[in-house]
Amino acid sequence: MVQEDIFKKIVSHCKEYGFVFPSSDIYDGLAAVYDYGQNGVELKNNIKQYWWQSMVLLHGNIVGIDAAIFMHPTVWKASGHVDAFNDPLIDNRDSKKRYRADNLIEDQIGKYEEKIEKEIAKAAKKFGDSFDEDKFRETNPRVLENQRKRDALHARYTEAMQGPDLGELKQIILDEGIVDPISGTKNWTDVRQFNLMFSTEMGSLSDATNKIYLRPETAQGIFVNFLNVQKTGRMKVPFGIAQIGKAFRNEIVARQFVFRMREFEQMEMQFFCQPGTEMQWFEYWKKHRMAWHKALGMGDENYRFHDHEKLAHYANAASDIEFRMPFGFKEIEGIHSRTDFDLSQHEKFSGRQVKYFDPERNENYTPYDVETSIGVDRMFLTVMCHSYCEEKLENGSERIVLRLPEPLAPVKCAVLPLVNKDGLPEKAKEIVNALKFHFNTHIETKDSIGKRYRRQDAIGTPFCVTVDGDTLNDNTVTLRHRDSMKQERVPIEKLREIIEDRVSITSLLKKIDIDN
Amino acid sequence: MVQEDIFKKIVSHCKEYGFVFPSSDIYDGLAAVYDYGQNGVELKNNIKQYWWQSMVLLHGNIVGIDAAIFMHPTVWKASGHVDAFNDPLIDNRDSKKRYRADNLIEDQIGKYEEKIEKEIAKAAKKFGDSFDEDKFRETNPRVLENQRKRDALHARYTEAMQGPDLGELKQIILDEGIVDPISGTKNWTDVRQFNLMFSTEMGSLSDATNKIYLRPETAQGIFVNFLNVQKTGRMKVPFGIAQIGKAFRNEIVARQFVFRMREFEQMEMQFFCQPGTEMQWFEYWKKHRMAWHKALGMGDENYRFHDHEKLAHYANAASDIEFRMPFGFKEIEGIHSRTDFDLSQHEKFSGRQVKYFDPERNENYTPYDVETSIGVDRMFLTVMCHSYCEEKLENGSERIVLRLPEPLAPVKCAVLPLVNKDGLPEKAKEIVNALKFHFNTHIETKDSIGKRYRRQDAIGTPFCVTVDGDTLNDNTVTLRHRDSMKQERVPIEKLREIIEDRVSITSLLKKIDIDN
Repeated sequence: MVQEDIFKKIVSHCKEYGFVFPSSDIYDGLAAVYDYGQNGVELKNNIKQYWWQSMVLLHGNIVGIDAAIFMHPTVWKASGHVDAFNDPLIDNRDSKKRYRADNLIEDQIGKYEEKIEKEIAKAAKKFGDSFDEDKFRETNPRVLENQRKRDALHARYTEAMQGPDLGELKQIILDEGIVDPISGTKNWTDVRQFNLMFSTEMGSLSDATNKIYLRPETAQGIFVNFLNVQKTGRMKVPFGIAQIGKAFRNEIVARQFVFRMREFEQMEMQFFCQPGTEMQWFEYWKKHRMAWHKALGMGDENYRFHDHEKLAHYANAASDIEFRMPFGFKEIEGIHSRTDFDLSQHEKFSGRQVKYFDPERNENYTPYDVETSIGVDRMFLTVMCHSYCEEKLENGSERIVLRLPEPLAPVKCAVLPLVNKDGLPEKAKEIVNALKFHFNTHIETKDSIGKRYRRQDAIGTPFCVTVDGDTLNDNTVTLRHRDSMKQERVPIEKLREIIEDRVSITSLLKKIDIDN
Repeated sequence: MVQEDIFKKIVSHCKEYGFVFPSSDIYDGLAAVYDYGQNGVELKNNIKQYWWQSMVLLHGNIVGIDAAIFMHPTVWKASGHVDAFNDPLIDNRDSKKRYRADNLIEDQIGKYEEKIEKEIAKAAKKFGDSFDEDKFRETNPRVLENQRKRDALHARYTEAMQGPDLGELKQIILDEGIVDPISGTKNWTDVRQFNLMFSTEMGSLSDATNKIYLRPETAQGIFVNFLNVQKTGRMKVPFGIAQIGKAFRNEIVARQFVFRMREFEQMEMQFFCQPGTEMQWFEYWKKHRMAWHKALGMGDENYRFHDHEKLAHYANAASDIEFRMPFGFKEIEGIHSRTDFDLSQHEKFSGRQVKYFDPERNENYTPYDVETSIGVDRMFLTVMCHSYCEEKLENGSERIVLRLPEPLAPVKCAVLPLVNKDGLPEKAKEIVNALKFHFNTHIETKDSIGKRYRRQDAIGTPFCVTVDGDTLNDNTVTLRHRDSMKQERVPIEKLREIIEDRVSITSLLKKIDIDN
């Protein structure tokens, strides 16, 4: 099956089994906003808990905070978001649709690429085994012409994006004859910068508008609390501050389901260290964060680092952790050495000294900062994509199973009375009542056992416990494992231990704890 | 000490010990917005976890969701918030300040009350023991005059607030000669309705503004997901949907620290039941929610129900759970029987059938809804207020101790090497590394043991473990209890069990589980 079809199936599975619904679904949804359903919220909470505990419980020198979404507007002047957090937009006067100018040009570059691929596919079909693609690329005049156009456009576009000249972007669109995909016309407005922050007004004065922003990143909430946390927590550099929270970006084109949304959730940790030691911590955090991912058991071969060559103005090193998604390797986390940029900016804009007094060196300095920043929703999507599996069984039937990392599964254990009578439901309820304090345990009484297994497979429940007639006599049950579908007979009093060992977040933490 | 002073002390304790900071503090804060610090976030997360688990783990028929803050704008037409979620505002042209007209009038009523109290106090002082207050109230002409004015104003104000005539509110302000407390003038504008929802624009079309709102309550996220959750989760009425999330209200006057904020967090559960059974469930949830509060051990005498006499248009029964705060009994949770109002409204506005097919009764109906709604931040504040305690010790010294319910404490256990040498810190670290997977455990090496105990008392840590020379020989430590300050010698291998039994959320859940 092609990867695009698999992705579509995953998206519809998410809705069908209560993981993700379009926001305000009964009103036909709100573009690029999603709600987490009864299973999605549990999976997402488990991801957040795993991250939080790995930061705060495992590291004696990391503490958490929870800053508000609303912040003082000057924060975003200091951070650079008011002036520079923009996308270049262009409107088509006929369709009234708005586009990102850079996306239109990138699509055009892609079209030259497509033409080249088409020529090659045609020739490959014609010449069969004797086809030499490299030679064809070097000699075919139509391929050469398209390569030349592609490279020239790419060079011109790259240069235009460096500078502040939006007119050049428009000129490229006109010169290339790019048309609106809806109206089919070239009736374009000028290109304008469009700030990606959502703004609102906090009203208590009559004569002034109090414009504030919904934070476009959670990081600044940590920077402005640096002094308070350091002083009240008596923190000594190096130390970190961790935070989980919502952020908002007014993306014009939001894509790929929960991968790029207008409202999303971040898990960020800023690690403050002595200037000059940041590269050592940058490497430490690359390693530690990769270990966090790999402990989930989703295949070491599905992860890679992507080191940035071009760095943001505030960074002196940056690397992404990428995961293999159905639509290619994609960034799920960034590890950035942000220098003293943010704390210095807040010192400048607030007029307060934002420094650390180092008792050992007996001096004040602005700490350097290494950030780890991961999107909860992206992480959620990687887990769903990796786990979704259509299997052909030995008896010829099929099953869809979510091979979720067991500690992340929404429901850990489903207790199934074989029949809905003869005291079996009561016995099942008794088992649920003992297990429910330790992990999420459900009871399911409707339909055949086979159907109930399928439903639990589809939501990724790692363990099913079947209660039958023998259970009433000998207090044993059938424990069925999701992935292998193997069944074993176990005493009821062993259930908690067997399951808890496998499904607890602690089991993940122990794998990555550097002190153990 | 007067209660107001205690409240001020609690607020400053919150800042000094990393529980709550003003938002964007280095920029002098943002009005009525607060950030949770390193200890506050842990306490808040524990409250949220206790609530979530009590709903989702203990009830087989309640599931969670996490809906986005952004919702389709029609949701707020259907819910009535666009048309009716208003405060009547008036501006003073000289001070340029904006006020709630109803608050100005209520303050004026309070002024008559103050005058009466002053007369009584003066007379009481003059006549001493022979003073008969009741008789004085009934006979003193100045008291009678102020009572008459107060009652007349109250009656006129109450009537004005019923109707849509904002002119009458302004007329009252003019007739009473109410002046702006800043400018001292009566130069008032007309009274206008001011919607309490924050709005923003989601931009993807060039010719239309796409106005959306930040949700003013989380409840609607549950109602619009009713169909999706019911169908994909195969839920049978009666069942509940639980949610924790941020909500936003553009209050003109935000007060009392985190008690009334512009950005706040709610924990809401909507319980859908057969029409006609809602009163039985309303009583069930009153009882269950009160049990949840009381299990925290903050004193049964500090809670009371306040049944509403005047009901919102959508409700047929409503009761608040109130807690004794330093500023009086205050609402911390509402239990509301909301009838089928919300689901019916969404059926009307969306054009979709929002009903439940009952297989036993073989018919479609709109379920009735009983809501339990509690503010996380208010709950946080009740816990802080109740726990804050200044104690005189036997040796004459004082301590401030936060007598937090143990499962809610940010740090459960602090491990303190008696001296910072001779292998004691290493031994302490070993203990931390064994306990940290099970609960939040810190190590503290600086300052005298006495000072370290005080710091842990001030953040409410229930257990301190002291590691001394003997520990290295016999693997025992001194376990010190926060509230009693009693110390006992225990083997290291017993620590986990002793502490975990007391600090786990499970210990709370077991107290309120109806099935056990």
